[in-house]
Amino acid sequence: MLNWIDGRPEELLSIKDRGLAYGDGLFETVAVTAGAPVLLERHLSRLAQSCARMKIPLDQHLLRTELLAFCAALGEGVAKLIITRGDGLRGYAPPATALPRRILQGFATPAYAPENAGQGVRLFACATPLAEQPLLAGMKHLNRLEQVLARAEWDDPSYAEGLMRDVSGRVVEAVYSNIFMIKNGQLLTPNLSRCGVAGVMRAELLDQAARLSIPCAVTDISLSELLGADEVFVCNSVYGVWPVLELLDSRWLAGPMTRKLQTIARDLLDS
Amino acid sequence: MLNWIDGRPEELLSIKDRGLAYGDGLFETVAVTAGAPVLLERHLSRLAQSCARMKIPLDQHLLRTELLAFCAALGEGVAKLIITRGDGLRGYAPPATALPRRILQGFATPAYAPENAGQGVRLFACATPLAEQPLLAGMKHLNRLEQVLARAEWDDPSYAEGLMRDVSGRVVEAVYSNIFMIKNGQLLTPNLSRCGVAGVMRAELLDQAARLSIPCAVTDISLSELLGADEVFVCNSVYGVWPVLELLDSRWLAGPMTRKLQTIARDLLDS
Repeated sequence: MLNWIDGRPEELLSIKDRGLAYGDGLFETVAVTAGAPVLLERHLSRLAQSCARMKIPLDQHLLRTELLAFCAALGEGVAKLIITRGDGLRGYAPPATALPRRILQGFATPAYAPENAGQGVRLFACATPLAEQPLLAGMKHLNRLEQVLARAEWDDPSYAEGLMRDVSGRVVEAVYSNIFMIKNGQLLTPNLSRCGVAGVMRAELLDQAARLSIPCAVTDISLSELLGADEVFVCNSVYGVWPVLELLDSRWLAGPMTRKLQTIARDLLDS
Repeated sequence: MLNWIDGRPEELLSIKDRGLAYGDGLFETVAVTAGAPVLLERHLSRLAQSCARMKIPLDQHLLRTELLAFCAALGEGVAKLIITRGDGLRGYAPPATALPRRILQGFATPAYAPENAGQGVRLFACATPLAEQPLLAGMKHLNRLEQVLARAEWDDPSYAEGLMRDVSGRVVEAVYSNIFMIKNGQLLTPNLSRCGVAGVMRAELLDQAARLSIPCAVTDISLSELLGADEVFVCNSVYGVWPVLELLDSRWLAGPMTRKLQTIARDLLDS
């Protein structure tokens, strides 16, 4: 597949890169349709905000140009963009001369089972908790060992995703998705100020729901509140929306609000 | 300088490596004296334990052979060893075919100011808290953004190290060192079961102190307890022991227990 580093075809990286040494960087996973990135502005905006928080001096204009060219070359599939702080010496202090590195990897569109989007998915209840770290919360940074541990908890393929909670037991997200619930006509999704990744599809669906005058809230959600929901779904920027069928002892059917938002996501991803 | 990947001179790495993608790996920083690694068994043992916790199937025998050969080739300096879970596809699940990768980088012995070991160092009080994650605590894994953020808090070179506390304010460690305090003849160092890196020099000094019948405790330590200590020092496997002179409003002189343990560390590093 297609791989670029700093705008040139390349798949080898210096072992001095701080992305390897410390996970000192960020990533975005971008759906590519008809040679164009889906939700481009949201991806670039999240990345710019995270770079500002991490003080990574990324050239946003260059990145945009490069990402567009990469997606045009890829055609269809998924573009994974990694931004690192660049090369470093030994030691945590960012060297004054570090130049951020832009890594782009192309992948085929994942072959998810059609039932995931159709009838829905079963969620595994992961035991691995998410630690609370407000300084890193919301960002899609490269420190992802908690997700690695959580994903390693199950190998039964009948679970398409796993639910992750924080150390206090609050619902946060799924391993590679955000989670929403619907209760009495209101759309709810966890507050991600302590931990979790603020996904671009989550942001898009919140905006679209507001536009449709669907009552929305970003709030703390307990496991029992989630289990008592009328509808539950997970979402991300690659597959869109999957209804949740089952979690622990709760069962759901894909409901009307889930289907409405799934259609919106599908239209974005198919356009 | 010397760089090896999987036993061969190489300084370029596949961008598919999970160390880059997720920080899915571990590292060790090994002092090298007269062609030999210092505290070799402790480094290998910590690494083996961490690999077991992370289910990384590392060939320990091969690694030992390789590390010894690398240190012999390096002669003097610091060997940084990174172990990653190897290449992966997109997605957190470890691929069944992943082969751990061994990366070795050689560095010159750091040119620390002689006063650090002599009169001692000033500690900056970092605001970046360490999140509590018992599943990752103690390991020297590649998810080190908290240290990157903490180290970026100061650029005044008169601070040689920075103190890190957990989200509840307990003393945990310094950015690239462990910390000890002495109070009424007892040697105390923080409990690292919630967060922090369990350094090999820390383990060595605890064992040596026990051998010398110095009363020791690994326990929770509050900031006020630390500030009220009789002596404070930081340690790691590269520089040994540095007395702490100053932290916030507290001042210390390098005391007798610090000097005793510093001599032990120096003998190990000079041998």
